[in-house]
Amino acid sequence: MKILFIGDVVGSPGRDMVKEYLPKLKEKYRPTVTVINGENAAGGKGITEKIYRQFLEWGGQAVTLGNHAWDNREVFSFIDQAKYLVRPANFPEGTPGSGIAYLKVNEDEIAVINLQGRAFLPAIDCPFRKADELIEEASKRTPNIFVDFHAEATSEKLAMGWYLAGRATFVAGTHTHVQTADARILPGGTAYITDAGMTGPYDGILGVNRDAVLKRFLTSLPVRFEITEEGGNQLSGALVEFNNKTGRAQKIQPILINNDHPFFG
Amino acid sequence: MKILFIGDVVGSPGRDMVKEYLPKLKEKYRPTVTVINGENAAGGKGITEKIYRQFLEWGGQAVTLGNHAWDNREVFSFIDQAKYLVRPANFPEGTPGSGIAYLKVNEDEIAVINLQGRAFLPAIDCPFRKADELIEEASKRTPNIFVDFHAEATSEKLAMGWYLAGRATFVAGTHTHVQTADARILPGGTAYITDAGMTGPYDGILGVNRDAVLKRFLTSLPVRFEITEEGGNQLSGALVEFNNKTGRAQKIQPILINNDHPFFG
Amino acid sequence: MKILFIGDVVGSPGRDMVKEYLPKLKEKYRPTVTVINGENAAGGKGITEKIYRQFLEWGGQAVTLGNHAWDNREVFSFIDQAKYLVRPANFPEGTPGSGIAYLKVNEDEIAVINLQGRAFLPAIDCPFRKADELIEEASKRTPNIFVDFHAEATSEKLAMGWYLAGRATFVAGTHTHVQTADARILPGGTAYITDAGMTGPYDGILGVNRDAVLKRFLTSLPVRFEITEEGGNQLSGALVEFNNKTGRAQKIQPILINNDHPFFG
Amino acid sequence: MKILFIGDVVGSPGRDMVKEYLPKLKEKYRPTVTVINGENAAGGKGITEKIYRQFLEWGGQAVTLGNHAWDNREVFSFIDQAKYLVRPANFPEGTPGSGIAYLKVNEDEIAVINLQGRAFLPAIDCPFRKADELIEEASKRTPNIFVDFHAEATSEKLAMGWYLAGRATFVAGTHTHVQTADARILPGGTAYITDAGMTGPYDGILGVNRDAVLKRFLTSLPVRFEITEEGGNQLSGALVEFNNKTGRAQKIQPILINNDHPFFG
Ligand SMILES: [Fe+2]
Ligand SMILES: [Fe+2]
Ligand SMILES: [Fe+2]
Ligand SMILES: [Fe+2]
Ligand SMILES: [Fe+2]
Ligand SMILES: [Fe+2]
Ligand SMILES: [Fe+2]
Ligand SMILES: [Fe+2]
Repeated sequence: MKILFIGDVVGSPGRDMVKEYLPKLKEKYRPTVTVINGENAAGGKGITEKIYRQFLEWGGQAVTLGNHAWDNREVFSFIDQAKYLVRPANFPEGTPGSGIAYLKVNEDEIAVINLQGRAFLPAIDCPFRKADELIEEASKRTPNIFVDFHAEATSEKLAMGWYLAGRATFVAGTHTHVQTADARILPGGTAYITDAGMTGPYDGILGVNRDAVLKRFLTSLPVRFEITEEGGNQLSGALVEFNNKTGRAQKIQPILINNDHPFFG
Repeated sequence: MKILFIGDVVGSPGRDMVKEYLPKLKEKYRPTVTVINGENAAGGKGITEKIYRQFLEWGGQAVTLGNHAWDNREVFSFIDQAKYLVRPANFPEGTPGSGIAYLKVNEDEIAVINLQGRAFLPAIDCPFRKADELIEEASKRTPNIFVDFHAEATSEKLAMGWYLAGRATFVAGTHTHVQTADARILPGGTAYITDAGMTGPYDGILGVNRDAVLKRFLTSLPVRFEITEEGGNQLSGALVEFNNKTGRAQKIQPILINNDHPFFG
Repeated sequence: MKILFIGDVVGSPGRDMVKEYLPKLKEKYRPTVTVINGENAAGGKGITEKIYRQFLEWGGQAVTLGNHAWDNREVFSFIDQAKYLVRPANFPEGTPGSGIAYLKVNEDEIAVINLQGRAFLPAIDCPFRKADELIEEASKRTPNIFVDFHAEATSEKLAMGWYLAGRATFVAGTHTHVQTADARILPGGTAYITDAGMTGPYDGILGVNRDAVLKRFLTSLPVRFEITEEGGNQLSGALVEFNNKTGRAQKIQPILINNDHPFFG
Repeated sequence: MKILFIGDVVGSPGRDMVKEYLPKLKEKYRPTVTVINGENAAGGKGITEKIYRQFLEWGGQAVTLGNHAWDNREVFSFIDQAKYLVRPANFPEGTPGSGIAYLKVNEDEIAVINLQGRAFLPAIDCPFRKADELIEEASKRTPNIFVDFHAEATSEKLAMGWYLAGRATFVAGTHTHVQTADARILPGGTAYITDAGMTGPYDGILGVNRDAVLKRFLTSLPVRFEITEEGGNQLSGALVEFNNKTGRAQKIQPILINNDHPFFG
């Protein structure tokens, strides 16, 4: 089986890329399921019900979130009904939504888990202990476990990868919006990449208007971060092939489509 | 001309990789100069005079630093005499050492600048304004300007890349110890990579013993971070080809040598 | 001479306290000048021209700011004309407004300086070096120098107090919104208090609605911080008596008016 | 009944103050029990068994800790046997030591709880939920509950005070080393002070050598923080009178002894 994961989709440029390339990627790679990180899908900030549904229509099976989960308040109105919308599982007890979803594929299942790091990010529950708990739960149903670990620090992300080595099928980092070059199969058959990268404007700064970001760094004055319209777009992600009887990954392949990395169908 | 840059060398495993592969890389790619980030070269913490000299003997022309610059106190005894040891230029006024060095290559010169970011790192002087100042200074002597921007946040690194687009030859990020997959030529001919990656143990966490890092994340108890001896090593960096009359980069190529990316001489 | 300083005025409850008690405080203590920190005066976020003018009408001679300086965008329209509105002097070069003002009192002058710390706050220019610069400048005109050091960490604030001991007349900390019990005269005749405290709702959390703050700490969900209307209000500050020929402070007295500390006129 | 709490004791200057003044304070105020924060008791960093025993000999009944709990490794050898040494209860599960102790006073008991904040401090478990859990447990045995909340941010400390209003007898903040002027009885009979202050050198910066701290702020160079020997010392704390049948506080009185606040026996 194959999991295709698409990293943080930013605004309409990111959604356009998903709409255009997900069908082509599916045709080329034939993923069994596709998971999309949608924490920045609504204008860079959170997600709406319409966008969540579009992701499923365009070929996704589950949508993960991150520290921007609540930026668009509309999310509270539909998250508890959105079976395939997964928010970080280690958000405080009582938080709306769920941190795990199960995707049915014929006789098999794939668990989709979302966790958030704490280094340079708000203090929430321990992601490592929560990972233990959810993986124990999921393992009773399926050996096929995907984890989107939304975190800033490379140390925390690598720590999670190694912590879950041999227990998860695929640990994909998100949040920094820059794809890393370290995709590998860890001992025990766990596919790992520190960050899957961002899907959206290629010539912005993390998807945002460059002038605004530079003004902020240079002056500390308030600026309005807007999704840049300038330049081309990119799609970032990774594809993992695994044995659905053992949950062990066999191969991981980064996906990167932009002006410097054209897509060949 | 070509600049070869080697990212954060960690401890003896990292130094061994430089010693073994730098000659091979030079043979294969024929770089005009080689710059090495050595902030973690002495057991992960700072640098000693012996190690600095070894880097030059093994084929490096300049050594850059970062937030670990002062971890080994020996540095204070030789940095002011070490002409090719460059520490972040935006450290507070009065700091020992220099933030810029000039490498003479026949009739040409290459300026080597080191800067440090402030997002999630100690508050120092503004790296953007210091960049303006040093690039103005360097531009009077040479169009060929290399910048090692040692920073944590991808936003700050991308901001620096775009800020210097058209003014620097090559902006290489360091510090996160994980190579990014975004090497590109920005408009104006500036080669850019968010992080060149780490040179040292491939199976540690940023070069450090995994058990110690995991214990820290799981318990917050004090642990001793030691360079791991386990597993193989890696070398990370990037090679940039540029026009030495204009200082414009023509091509950037990431360098990655590890068990998953064998070197072909 | 005497300086009366009133700590962070929060919203209309804070402004009401200034309007009501400033005349009474002036009658009781006869301060030569009154300085008011107004960074939270407009609904907790920044300041407007109307509020700035009210502070002057009600008896203030200068208004200082802090990290909330720009929260209300109206400030940009009048700060360059507002002669007695002082923003942190170590904001990046090119920032609107000024970090120092001079108050004329008969033949004498009092310099009013605002600085902002960097520990747990955004990275800006070094407040210690900027203090050196402004105190050198001010000392050419007057020995009477007031500094509002807007900072989070007690270490940084105490460091500034001791750094300026013998060079400033009065160093008052602001920003934590809780008055400290350490008012003292440092060697060299510098009056010092780590934090002057907050002027506004006494039964909120730093002036804000308790339920919102608690919800934030308990759930990390987005909440709307509103100035609480519940309970009584307080006024916090400090009064310093000094020799206007030497600039040396003779006495510092904290001012605290709330339900537990009634005012006796 | 009365609880005397003594804030962060720093090094031998702090211990000397406890040894000298605790007997005098006991004679003057007749506290039922005395609790001492000892996180900086051993040279500023952690605690040793000898010091813990001295605190009990000199008249303390319990010793609380904080973020410096583990700085002196000796603590691991005795904490599990030290019945009255209390470390932050919300440290990760599996941490040595206990976060609650019960002091027997004739027919009554007083629960002593230690918690640590997360704002500007390492990410650990939620202190608010842990407080709920421990107060529920303690309430089954006694209405008399003391909480040392070791935290940096005034917002988090005030939030804890209000969160426990009506449920705890006394919530004392620690960690910032500067006593606050906001001691009060919150609704429901909970005595509260944002920070009890530091017991140690009066003329240092938080107890540490001023030159070292200033050098650090000015240069970011490595410095050795040593307990200053210069100048006089201080003792900081607070005394709370409460009804031992209801656990409700009736009165809170800050304790401050230093050159500017002499002790009158
Ligand atoms: Fe994102
Ligand atoms: Fe994110
Ligand atoms: Fe490094
Ligand atoms: Fe670094
Ligand atoms: Fe404020
Ligand atoms: Fe503030
Ligand atoms: Fe302390
Ligand atoms: Fe502490």
